[in-house]
Amino acid sequence: MKKVLVLGAGRSSQYLIDYLLDISQADQYEVMLTDREKELAAYRVQHHSNGRAIVLDVSNEKERDALIQESDLVISMLPINFHLEVAKACLKYRKNMVTASYVSPEINQLNEEVKRTGLIFLKECGLDPGIDHMSAMSVIDKIRNLGGNLRSFETFTGGLLVPSPDENPWQYKFTWNPRNVVLAGQGGVKFLQEGAFKYIPYHKIFRRTEMVHIPGHGYFEGYANRDSLKYLKLYNLEGIKTMYRGTFRRPGFCRAWDIFVQIGATDDSYMMDNVKEMTHKQFINSFLSYNPYDSVELKLAHYLNLDFDSLEMYKLRWLHLFDEEPVGLEEGTPAQILEHILKKRWTLDANDRDLIVMWHKFEYFEEQQLKVINSYLTAEGENNLKTAMARTVGLPVGIAARLILKGKIGLKGVHIPTKKEIYEPILHELKTLGVEIQEELPRLIKMPGKNL
Amino acid sequence: MKKVLVLGAGRSSQYLIDYLLDISQADQYEVMLTDREKELAAYRVQHHSNGRAIVLDVSNEKERDALIQESDLVISMLPINFHLEVAKACLKYRKNMVTASYVSPEINQLNEEVKRTGLIFLKECGLDPGIDHMSAMSVIDKIRNLGGNLRSFETFTGGLLVPSPDENPWQYKFTWNPRNVVLAGQGGVKFLQEGAFKYIPYHKIFRRTEMVHIPGHGYFEGYANRDSLKYLKLYNLEGIKTMYRGTFRRPGFCRAWDIFVQIGATDDSYMMDNVKEMTHKQFINSFLSYNPYDSVELKLAHYLNLDFDSLEMYKLRWLHLFDEEPVGLEEGTPAQILEHILKKRWTLDANDRDLIVMWHKFEYFEEQQLKVINSYLTAEGENNLKTAMARTVGLPVGIAARLILKGKIGLKGVHIPTKKEIYEPILHELKTLGVEIQEELPRLIKMPGKNL
Repeated sequence: MKKVLVLGAGRSSQYLIDYLLDISQADQYEVMLTDREKELAAYRVQHHSNGRAIVLDVSNEKERDALIQESDLVISMLPINFHLEVAKACLKYRKNMVTASYVSPEINQLNEEVKRTGLIFLKECGLDPGIDHMSAMSVIDKIRNLGGNLRSFETFTGGLLVPSPDENPWQYKFTWNPRNVVLAGQGGVKFLQEGAFKYIPYHKIFRRTEMVHIPGHGYFEGYANRDSLKYLKLYNLEGIKTMYRGTFRRPGFCRAWDIFVQIGATDDSYMMDNVKEMTHKQFINSFLSYNPYDSVELKLAHYLNLDFDSLEMYKLRWLHLFDEEPVGLEEGTPAQILEHILKKRWTLDANDRDLIVMWHKFEYFEEQQLKVINSYLTAEGENNLKTAMARTVGLPVGIAARLILKGKIGLKGVHIPTKKEIYEPILHELKTLGVEIQEELPRLIKMPGKNL
Repeated sequence: MKKVLVLGAGRSSQYLIDYLLDISQADQYEVMLTDREKELAAYRVQHHSNGRAIVLDVSNEKERDALIQESDLVISMLPINFHLEVAKACLKYRKNMVTASYVSPEINQLNEEVKRTGLIFLKECGLDPGIDHMSAMSVIDKIRNLGGNLRSFETFTGGLLVPSPDENPWQYKFTWNPRNVVLAGQGGVKFLQEGAFKYIPYHKIFRRTEMVHIPGHGYFEGYANRDSLKYLKLYNLEGIKTMYRGTFRRPGFCRAWDIFVQIGATDDSYMMDNVKEMTHKQFINSFLSYNPYDSVELKLAHYLNLDFDSLEMYKLRWLHLFDEEPVGLEEGTPAQILEHILKKRWTLDANDRDLIVMWHKFEYFEEQQLKVINSYLTAEGENNLKTAMARTVGLPVGIAARLILKGKIGLKGVHIPTKKEIYEPILHELKTLGVEIQEELPRLIKMPGKNL
């Protein structure tokens, strides 16, 4: 009986574990799930006959390595800072590895050695990164096989909420790492549009959005992600005219979020003073000019030229930002304090259902005609534990692990799922599990203008 | 005959050298001026009988140390990155040292050793830093001696131009390090106002200005400098309600400069693409949205909500920013490219005269009455070589060197000119040389409000 070692039983691992256990009888393997908390690992495994819950502090090298040595394949669902060490141990004990995290330059440097050892380290195999690579490359390869010539690729992904009559005017809660949401966009943005390099500084990103309609799901607004240009190489798209990657939010979100950016509330570079005694209102006021007579609310509205009865101001009031409610932190940067305040109202309730939306737009020439294909993926969660995020991150990881164990993937080295040999069987299996990419038929379109 | 070693014969050294040579006969010393370029050092010294022009590459440790050993006092006018090495050599050969540059943490660490060796390293003894410390502390000490209790200190300095009928709508050119001007404000701002800590992110600094009137010189607008709070300690002002440091520009400058900040043209964190073929207009366009039909000028005006006939737009046109004029660089960050473009029109002509403006405002309680004192310094240059900047930086350095050589300053260790023993004789001598701080008489004022 083969053994799959899963490191980390955090929130995103439930669907992965369920998938692995479901097929463990047919495929004949055991699932070893480790976590710092024994109860959590045991809860995920639920006394399944092929499951084993193990308590492990990953920084305990000896225990970790013993488990790696015992296993046939390692899946790491750990925070990204642990991945390099786990990768090195996998190399040492000659074990294949699958993760949903980004390839770091350090892990990339292991490529030759991983290849030489006859292993595969498959990274970025979750949702974003993961299904985005796979669903994009499946259309890009198809266009190429038809003799088409891609000229433009735009792609957006968002972790959102299923619409509800809930009073939350943001129509948003944290469904993924809150810190990353608060810091999103910092460092500015770089992309390629109609052959021209375009740059947006951080403080303008949330006012340079695009509106996208997805059939059956309505409108979404997208803001640009950091560096779209690196995907030219990853997807082998050099020479393309437009390359744009972004993140989806509900329409109106970005304008309200931009208030935090404009006042400096997302800054993570310095510790604020007097945090211990700070209230929500004082937090906001520390970014506004001094005036002994005016209210914080009016000073903010005037500073950013917001109508007092605007939806943006209402969104801030709904977060209790103008209340004398204690922040409740001992210390922190503006970004840490903002995250703490947002968590008070942006944490999923038992009945909240999250929504994943991914959208690609491909423009290409085929026989001198310009055509467009849109493809998209949507996935809805069941509740605050069985989220669409956990499902769309966990399932591709589990499927990839299964394929590697069965010897169905022959590639060696450090990979992301951009090769047909990898993405085709994963997308196929995802479809049988209800995670299906919708692909519209190609349409003829007019050529855009030629100026910049 | 004693020997003063001056390292660096750059633009800011002329007044310093002239001052030292003028008094060299009376005080009986020789001035040794070094520079990488022999001609430049010789030009500054002008065959004066007590002057000696020496060619020196400061990174040549042996030659540099031989000169330091030979001298009685070292003045470094070198770029800041050389100062630590020179300081260490001064310590080794037991020579006093004077500079106009900021004290680095590394130099501060030498304090105990400098003291033990019986030396003084007097730093920040130019204009800003320099005269700002001296003129501020002279009023602060006076208020304290009268039994007054300081509650608020605001201070601004600007390197500007004497008003002229010149067509330059910015009323500004570079009179100091252009790179520092382009990057000014990055990292954001921190200050204390009426007891409340206030923070301004970089992208809002140039829209949070204050207007100040100076008798006989008109209006100036000031934007906040990076960290005002560190002056609480330097000036021993803990417990004060307001501490604000800023930079002066001509009214309207900041709004126009803010355009560069808003579009991201002052970013120094990444290299732009295709710089070699870039024109001014393309530089601006790379920060604007793609649109094949609209002009760059209109796109910019619309993006930042600027009237087409506004003074801000005119200022940009005057810089030829919408012209297809080649930038003329091989590569660069946005900030480097912007600096290069600005230098084309912001470099002093032979007849341009620069203007230094420094302004302090002190509020204090004296016998339960709230009073205010304003003090200010203005200095005008003669032309593009004999600038007010060079004079107000060079003279205090020269005066300090003279005082130390004459044994008039007994302090030991690493110092900045905040102590009366240092600032009083320097300010006195500056006055005789025509650099005089104007101090208004104290006025009674009303107490500001109590809310935040």
